[in-house]
Amino acid sequence: MLALMMDRPLTLPSILEHAALYHADREVVTRTVEGPIHRYGYADALGRARQMAKALLALGVRPGDRVATLAWSTHRHFELYFAVTGIGAILHTINPRLHDDQIVWVADHAEDSVLLFDITFSEQVARLAPQMTTVKTLVAMTDAAHAPAGVLVYEDLLAAQTPDFAWPDLDEKSASGLCYTSGTTGNPKGVLYGHRSTCLHALALALPDAFDLSARDVVMPCAQMYHANAWCTPYAAPLVGAKLVLPGRALDGPSIAELIAAEEVTFLLGVPTIWVGVADHLDQTGGQLDSVRTIAIGGSAPTAALISRVEQRLGGKVRQIWGMTETSPLGVINTALPTHAGESAEATMQRKLKQGRGLWGAELRIVGEDGAELPRDGKSTGALQVRGPWVSSAYFKQDGAGAFTADGWFDTGDIATIDPEGYLRLTDRAKDVIKSGGEWISTLDLEDAACSHPAVAMAAAVGMPHPKWDERPLLLITLRPGQSVDPEEVKAHVGARVARWWTPDEVRIVEELPLGPTGKVLKRELRDRWITPVPASDS
Amino acid sequence: MLALMMDRPLTLPSILEHAALYHADREVVTRTVEGPIHRYGYADALGRARQMAKALLALGVRPGDRVATLAWSTHRHFELYFAVTGIGAILHTINPRLHDDQIVWVADHAEDSVLLFDITFSEQVARLAPQMTTVKTLVAMTDAAHAPAGVLVYEDLLAAQTPDFAWPDLDEKSASGLCYTSGTTGNPKGVLYGHRSTCLHALALALPDAFDLSARDVVMPCAQMYHANAWCTPYAAPLVGAKLVLPGRALDGPSIAELIAAEEVTFLLGVPTIWVGVADHLDQTGGQLDSVRTIAIGGSAPTAALISRVEQRLGGKVRQIWGMTETSPLGVINTALPTHAGESAEATMQRKLKQGRGLWGAELRIVGEDGAELPRDGKSTGALQVRGPWVSSAYFKQDGAGAFTADGWFDTGDIATIDPEGYLRLTDRAKDVIKSGGEWISTLDLEDAACSHPAVAMAAAVGMPHPKWDERPLLLITLRPGQSVDPEEVKAHVGARVARWWTPDEVRIVEELPLGPTGKVLKRELRDRWITPVPASDS
Repeated sequence: MLALMMDRPLTLPSILEHAALYHADREVVTRTVEGPIHRYGYADALGRARQMAKALLALGVRPGDRVATLAWSTHRHFELYFAVTGIGAILHTINPRLHDDQIVWVADHAEDSVLLFDITFSEQVARLAPQMTTVKTLVAMTDAAHAPAGVLVYEDLLAAQTPDFAWPDLDEKSASGLCYTSGTTGNPKGVLYGHRSTCLHALALALPDAFDLSARDVVMPCAQMYHANAWCTPYAAPLVGAKLVLPGRALDGPSIAELIAAEEVTFLLGVPTIWVGVADHLDQTGGQLDSVRTIAIGGSAPTAALISRVEQRLGGKVRQIWGMTETSPLGVINTALPTHAGESAEATMQRKLKQGRGLWGAELRIVGEDGAELPRDGKSTGALQVRGPWVSSAYFKQDGAGAFTADGWFDTGDIATIDPEGYLRLTDRAKDVIKSGGEWISTLDLEDAACSHPAVAMAAAVGMPHPKWDERPLLLITLRPGQSVDPEEVKAHVGARVARWWTPDEVRIVEELPLGPTGKVLKRELRDRWITPVPASDS
Repeated sequence: MLALMMDRPLTLPSILEHAALYHADREVVTRTVEGPIHRYGYADALGRARQMAKALLALGVRPGDRVATLAWSTHRHFELYFAVTGIGAILHTINPRLHDDQIVWVADHAEDSVLLFDITFSEQVARLAPQMTTVKTLVAMTDAAHAPAGVLVYEDLLAAQTPDFAWPDLDEKSASGLCYTSGTTGNPKGVLYGHRSTCLHALALALPDAFDLSARDVVMPCAQMYHANAWCTPYAAPLVGAKLVLPGRALDGPSIAELIAAEEVTFLLGVPTIWVGVADHLDQTGGQLDSVRTIAIGGSAPTAALISRVEQRLGGKVRQIWGMTETSPLGVINTALPTHAGESAEATMQRKLKQGRGLWGAELRIVGEDGAELPRDGKSTGALQVRGPWVSSAYFKQDGAGAFTADGWFDTGDIATIDPEGYLRLTDRAKDVIKSGGEWISTLDLEDAACSHPAVAMAAAVGMPHPKWDERPLLLITLRPGQSVDPEEVKAHVGARVARWWTPDEVRIVEELPLGPTGKVLKRELRDRWITPVPASDS
């Protein structure tokens, strides 16, 4: 028997409609690509999103069409989050850090019809657009004064429309967004978000044990809007009526610190290096922040030293987060349980170093090599798999190739433990794990241990083939400016902090480590460069 | 184009599964009907809910069947919230305050097959069950030692089953709960909740600007679980891992105050009179509470004096809430906006007297007699209509009779204003409003003004037919114990607090006012008793 409740779909434009009605003057503040700070209320944002929706329809965009952006976190990008999705089209946020040939590849693979771009990318677009097969319309996300020649101008398209517009009825399961993962190997894979999945994710994100967002918050995502929807904050903020601060292109310490202070930001989100930049800047200037309540750190795991420094210098509390493009992205978040009240500072820090716990809606499990679920004992390490209404079920026009299990879970490619309290701790990427004597050595743990040495800037552990143990760890490190160190000293430092048999056989100091488009070390390149393959005859 | 996200339904048993996995030892504490305090963790609750699910299947309960309860807020009722719904059956929570004939009527109308009841109701059930057409199985929600003869025993049924059970796949749009409104006129009307509507409502309920519930909270609903699912707190608490305190039958001041102190309750919810009882008890005993953070007050509007006293005496902040059985029930909640920071105490109180604002997911509008939407100016009064995924679309096996509009809104039967900030203020029930000279007089405002007189206990305003003005207000009041007052003095007191032309033509002191099953004054009875109809020839 079906319930007798209204069949109201969960759709993205309804979020901005709500914000415009109940939080009309609550601001969206942007550091524009052109330079100045731009600010307006949600009511103005809705008017412009509606105008842009009509402009896109006038350009011939139809439901299901893919509309691409090559853009930073700005108010125009925010408008497109609703204008494109609200007419049933799909917003494909291209990561501008992809290599040129990959940008062309994803635009072709997505079959994008329109490409909207920030003027930062004008030259790149002029060079690449002719190589794109399906992109026929180019729109510079600026006004006529700043636009390059030969393309349409966002502000002109918008000005030609009035803001009266009724969003079409949408199936909540229809696609709304497309985001390609920038994996370290192979072609990018497209994740196709939907209205329902994004709304549920945004709702869960605002819960007290997640981002804890209310109308009294000021939210500044320091993850770009092309990167898994900037953790959905551009949807969660208007859903609750929080002020939204979009830092544009500038994620350097001084720019971020200035916006935090000027806009009284309460909630921050970004990768660890962003906060090092902010803390460095505050150290240099003696600046003080007093509005920050929470700093959500994801993308890569922060060290204890970083967590301490960020909490002290920025004045808020760190909540570690973990997720992937395929998980919308929230998978887990590290929030305290009531049983942690009164715990020691050391215990708090040990807890904060874990990635966090699942919320209702994000199911997690770890499985062994035989596919059987492993105990949540904090010791058993296995492949991390995720399931839920905001988790991918397949890649767009591509084979999942083992990422999706027969029983309906997404295999993250991460290796992890889950402890009895439910806290997840990542120990490795499955493809990076070092298998030694039939056991796994966590490269993340080795790298964390190395980075706790004062001379070490970055570290990367890879498996060297070994005749007896299959693999043994090689640790590559870069040094902080002006530092020098004996590799044996680093080896001893690491050896004192991990299981004895995990101690790297060798530590090598290198000039730099190769980084991918999201700032992660490209271990494949490391292996290609530093590891001599074992000739087949030796194995 | 459909999104490529997992098609995971939103279902109620998944909430308890989550709580059992992530908050295994977090307690559900009950003041049992038998007497003692009962406590267990969510893992134990899940085990027992699964056992009960199997017991119900063994009794022949099938998907879509209606299973009734006549029960207070207890851990067994909590188990049934999941056991019944989790097997696809529908939990019909009968309001025991209905008259006997209405209890039989709703059981027959719902076609209940099983009736589970607290031993408080043993005699009533023995008397009424034989009159029920479809109820074939009676289960006393107790153990063998406390059960009456001739019925099945909950603990025995449960003990016959093991806790290993896989919930069946459920369509999220399938029905999960049935709750009859106890309107003041006509037969009760059945509201048929679903898994999806209840999950979305519980998720929204936990948001910081709603009930603000986290794993660190201790939630005690002082609304009974037969009344619109106790505001869905039995679902929202496990969803976030909050401790849940169920007060059983005892909603008197001493019992509630004792539980708040002993269990360190942070979140309370109930009608105004509950908190008067608690405050009275604390006054008498000199008791002090230090754990309460929020007291959500709904059911009827609290006065400024009550809000002040409750905040002072219980130590938390009041958030007024408004909703109906048909809205799951959250419609609006009164939370501060950032623009209210630094407002005066008087301004805060004036704001708190409004019912509150809509959250994303609960759309509201007020319409005039012509059906056109009225401005949100805080002055225009109109019929309040609501729309959203947790709002009823129809009544169970009954004609909506004008409650559901052609364009898809639920007409609440309330008259209200919405101010420019989005705060709703109820001014009347549509059927109670007094129409005088073509304008509306708010009976709630007259009653509030009367109750602010120190001698007045309760007040009820009704429209008296008037040859010139159509209707003029008659105000009926009861006095506080030991008080006496000249009706003219009350008239002057009210007249000084409302528009001059709203001043009642007459104030009458009466012994008592007739109350319905939810404690609301039965205005129809008042009109029948106190108003002489205008003979047709006079009109």
